[in-house]
Amino acid sequence: MASKIYDTIIIGGGVSGYGAAMYAGRLGMKTLLIGETPGGTIILTDRVENYPGFSKLTGQELADKLKEHALDYKDFVEIKEGKIIKLEKKGDKFIVHSEKEKFETITVIYATGTKWRELNVPGHEEYKNKGVHYCALCDGFFYRNKVAAVVGGSDSAAKDALVLAEHASKVYIIYRGDKIRAEPPNLKRVEANKKIELIYKTNITEIKGDGKGVTSILLDTAYKGSKQLKLEGVFIAIGHIALSDIAKAAGVEVNEKGEIKINRNSETNIPGFYAAGDVVDSHFKQAITGVAEGVIAAYSAYEYIGNKKAK
Amino acid sequence: MASKIYDTIIIGGGVSGYGAAMYAGRLGMKTLLIGETPGGTIILTDRVENYPGFSKLTGQELADKLKEHALDYKDFVEIKEGKIIKLEKKGDKFIVHSEKEKFETITVIYATGTKWRELNVPGHEEYKNKGVHYCALCDGFFYRNKVAAVVGGSDSAAKDALVLAEHASKVYIIYRGDKIRAEPPNLKRVEANKKIELIYKTNITEIKGDGKGVTSILLDTAYKGSKQLKLEGVFIAIGHIALSDIAKAAGVEVNEKGEIKINRNSETNIPGFYAAGDVVDSHFKQAITGVAEGVIAAYSAYEYIGNKKAK
Repeated sequence: MASKIYDTIIIGGGVSGYGAAMYAGRLGMKTLLIGETPGGTIILTDRVENYPGFSKLTGQELADKLKEHALDYKDFVEIKEGKIIKLEKKGDKFIVHSEKEKFETITVIYATGTKWRELNVPGHEEYKNKGVHYCALCDGFFYRNKVAAVVGGSDSAAKDALVLAEHASKVYIIYRGDKIRAEPPNLKRVEANKKIELIYKTNITEIKGDGKGVTSILLDTAYKGSKQLKLEGVFIAIGHIALSDIAKAAGVEVNEKGEIKINRNSETNIPGFYAAGDVVDSHFKQAITGVAEGVIAAYSAYEYIGNKKAK
Repeated sequence: MASKIYDTIIIGGGVSGYGAAMYAGRLGMKTLLIGETPGGTIILTDRVENYPGFSKLTGQELADKLKEHALDYKDFVEIKEGKIIKLEKKGDKFIVHSEKEKFETITVIYATGTKWRELNVPGHEEYKNKGVHYCALCDGFFYRNKVAAVVGGSDSAAKDALVLAEHASKVYIIYRGDKIRAEPPNLKRVEANKKIELIYKTNITEIKGDGKGVTSILLDTAYKGSKQLKLEGVFIAIGHIALSDIAKAAGVEVNEKGEIKINRNSETNIPGFYAAGDVVDSHFKQAITGVAEGVIAAYSAYEYIGNKKAK
């Protein structure tokens, strides 16, 4: 392998990766970003109102801005599309294998994100981001004084319902089990909240709409005498999956949810290996926090390289 | 005191405070932000190129954007100018005293920032941000292939010189002492860097320019036979002071530098009391990281209030 050695390779082309790439470039590091889905999951969101500084833009627009910003430093930053299949430590470098090539680097910034566990029912695809959402905190505000539902029984589902209830006039939690598994305070809050109604032992069988947006859902069990429930928003909270497998295979520590454990400097258990964004074990995950973690990862990588050279 | 009780009071009107206010508003919290200098220290920077998403804008423009974003939620967010003189815990609330008023709140987000220790020499004020800077990482890029100096002898001064040396053709470190106090790896790097020259036992007595920018500095000791040194940039790294006194007086833990100790959830040692931005003990401090800490603080405050209500 006679190819050049990168200072850092960023795996993942979401907002966290782009933030990391911009800073790495600014710090004069030879940087390669490889992402499978350019822009990441945020491009699935049609309205982003919570990235501080931008009152409102689409997820695609935000991703594009962050990417362009990284490419302001294109003397240092290279962006490629590709799927990483393997990572290995070799001496004091890392070898990053994509499906077609392999690359050598001193540091790695892992920012692959998560994938949402999807609800496989008719209408889901058609109304994604037009009534079907995955983040109450991101999109709950749009259901001000409207009726919406959360699908799922986890603590996240309960919290989504609580966030939604601050905006919506009515919130259903639809859960296939017989008792939601929320943390005690959240459970109490859900039970005390007059806007929230729990529908147990029930699954959604179809999401229906008028072409522009959602108008109702069909249930497998009658609720108040009907298998059809009128509403405008459906929030899916049946879990998401941290895309950490390749890092884990390389020896990076993950928690019980499969999220990569980092500290405040975005460091993992492996020196020179950093992580950022939805794939990490931060409690609160938003575009802005992921970007900041990416920026911190770039700076930590920069310091790591400096310290190595000084040895 | 019959006045209303806020869900959160944000102390400090810099970017971290505005980020916190936007999220707090979005989460439906009754929020008051009180700041002494609207916009905070970033307004002293004429070109911000490192807030991910904005390729280039002034510090004032960035601060304005974040403030306007917070005011998108003006049903929940109130912004006041004022100086906080005292904070106290009273039962399960906090009382925040400004010079003229007092306010009651369930949570506090402390984001007062720092002040730079300034170099008191003629020319300093005139050329601030026109050759005189305080952040090599922020502004070093503007000295690409130019000559610049760092004033100071700390590890920060050394790191600033190293960052500058990636851009500048020549970097002087001017220090009144006889040996810079950098961490060993940074010291080694400084000594190994051919672009960096150390000038010890020397003070700057004046910063001179042509009205538009800096052209030279005057020294109190001759260097290579002259007390005048030609250069275009002077980076002041003689320290900065965390504005944590009022929090400290209220029992909030600080580190040896006076920075407020927080964890990854922006929590301090006092339940319901959060901190964010330059005043906290994060290793790497940038606008983006401070804003993210503010956002996390708002979310932690939101969860704290929810948990209290559920009890």
